[in-house]
Formats: sequence, structure tokens, C-alpha cells
Amino acid sequence: MIQLLARLPGLGPRSARRAALHLIRKKDTLLGPLAEALVRASESIVVCSVCGSVDTTDPCAVCGDATRDPSLLVVVEDVADLWALERAVAVKGRYHVLGGTLSALDGRGPGDLNLERLVARASDPSVIEVVLALNATVDGQTTAHYVTDVLVNSGVKVTRLAHGVPVGGELDYLDEGTLSAAIRQRTPF
Amino acid sequence: MIQLLARLPGLGPRSARRAALHLIRKKDTLLGPLAEALVRASESIVVCSVCGSVDTTDPCAVCGDATRDPSLLVVVEDVADLWALERAVAVKGRYHVLGGTLSALDGRGPGDLNLERLVARASDPSVIEVVLALNATVDGQTTAHYVTDVLVNSGVKVTRLAHGVPVGGELDYLDEGTLSAAIRQRTPF
Repeated sequence: MIQLLARLPGLGPRSARRAALHLIRKKDTLLGPLAEALVRASESIVVCSVCGSVDTTDPCAVCGDATRDPSLLVVVEDVADLWALERAVAVKGRYHVLGGTLSALDGRGPGDLNLERLVARASDPSVIEVVLALNATVDGQTTAHYVTDVLVNSGVKVTRLAHGVPVGGELDYLDEGTLSAAIRQRTPF
Repeated sequence: MIQLLARLPGLGPRSARRAALHLIRKKDTLLGPLAEALVRASESIVVCSVCGSVDTTDPCAVCGDATRDPSLLVVVEDVADLWALERAVAVKGRYHVLGGTLSALDGRGPGDLNLERLVARASDPSVIEVVLALNATVDGQTTAHYVTDVLVNSGVKVTRLAHGVPVGGELDYLDEGTLSAAIRQRTPF
């Protein structure tokens, strides 16, 4: 159990031992319910065949929601980003989870991403705009360029997230790239 | 000396004592030159009568630079923000330093800001656009609204910095407000 716990992100061998001990001490209130929850999750959670997100149903709750705007497709790197956008209630469109970014260093090429399905979805006449909601990192932007190239023949409008000052941000603490982007993309007030 | 050093931002009484001791130990290589530099600075540094920035000349190097775009006026809160934008080589316009933000809590009202001079400069026919490069904080945005109201009769276009994902930012770590802004202000890719 300790060896498996140590493979969780954020837990090293030492904290895994502490977690294991804590679980054993709270056998009835924590270990039992957690074990049950893990079994339930492993039985019920499936990957959505439409967008690549995870949910207990296939298609997932977002893809199955008829009130969502079908003309807007938001491309994200992984499910955590989808959840972040949903928490922000930022967009009422549908999502497409790539499952990673291109990375020469980590040996991830286009074949490792959920791209074929994206091209098929973007070719649907109801889809008008594809928003690339990818991280503003080197890998994220490389992937954004690649996805744009892949989508060039599908006739959709490709947009990306705005770059600029984060809410609560102070200019003095921001990097040069962000400041340049914020000035370049300034908006009428 | 220790009491004066302790009034510098980031130095408490204890670190001021350590700094003082360090200065005394390095009397010839640090204390002497620093004292000289402080005297030179206190003699030569003046506030620019045009923009409110600090420099050794009046008008300052930016206001005196004829290659700058005279149609663009960038309003910043203080000189640190002006330096940040200059480091980023973000904009080739001119600046106007407000000298603070409106703040009900700290008792700073419109009279404490360098606003009269801003209205006069914005009324110059050569000025076409005023960019409000204020912090994305509550005080900064309150001030931005106030400045917009003040400038409404001067016929200039008022813009503000873009809000969005900072360069290098990962969606999963961003707050909801920033994500909403980034989606709302998405740009063609």
C-alpha cells in the first residue's frame, strides 16, 4: 500500500508512510470509506468517447448537455484544465481534451494526442469556432500552433485565450512577455 | 543610521542592524561609495514636471525623447510600473505617473493624484489614445474608472491593458476571474 501511495503526485516515500499509518489508525472512518470510494470510482468512471474527458457516463455530462452552445469547441490539454474552466463558468461551449501536449523532450508526438477525433468534430458544420485553451507555456504554445495547422482545412475560426495581466496582478511583479502582450492586446475601456 | 535603514521597505529593525554592521565592516568598499551615491542622487534627481517620473533631468529622458509616439499616453500608478513597462520595451509612447491610486481605506482621494496635469496633457490634440496601465487590483480598477470619467470630455480614446493568462501560466493554477477574462477576450490565432 505504501509503495502505491508513494506513486501519487505530491506524495514521497516518507509522506506515503505517514499517510498509510494515518489510514490504518482511522480504519473505520477513513480507510474503509476511501477503499469503497476507490472501488466505486474504478468501476464507474469511463473516458468520454466524444471529448476525452472523464465522467461516470459516456458521453460525459458536458457533451450530453443540450443547453451547451454546439458552435463553440474549447480545446484543453487535460481534464484538470477542463475542470478549471468549468469552475470559472468561463464558457458554455463543449470541450475537447487532447490528453497532453507535444513535447520533444518527453518524446510525445502528434500520435499521442487525441487529434483525429478533434479534426472530425471540427469538421461538423455546427462547429464555428475552436478556442485553444492551452497553457501559455512553451509546450502549450507549440501544441497550439500544431493544432492550428491540423485544423486549417476544416473551415473553423481558431482563437486562443487572451494573454495579459491576471486579475489582482501588479505590473511591477509581472514578467516582460506578459506586459508586452497586455499592452499589445489592450482593449477599449 | 539603523533607525533610518529600518524605514527602507523590506528591512525590519533586525535586518537594519545587520545591514548597518555590514556597511561599517566594509567602510571603504561599500559605506563610502554608497554614501557618495546617496548624496549624488539627492542632489541630482528631480521629478519630471511633464509626466511625474523621476530622472536627473527635467523633462525626463522619456518626455524629452523626440522618437517617442506623441499620440500614445500610458497612465501608470507609480514610477516602478513605468520602469517595468520600459524593461518590457512594451510601448514607445509617453507616460503619465499618477503617484498612487484612489483608496478609501488609506484616505487617498482624487486630490492626491496627479490628475489635473493628465487632463491638460490629454487635451493636447496630438494625443489620440490614453492607455490605463493600472494594476488589476481593486484600487487600481477603481482608479481606472475614475480616470476614465475625468477624461470623458477630452476626446481621447481610453483603453486598458488586456486581462488574461500570463506568459508561462498554466490554466489549472489560475483564478476564476482570470480564466473568464481570458475566454471573453480570446483572440484569433
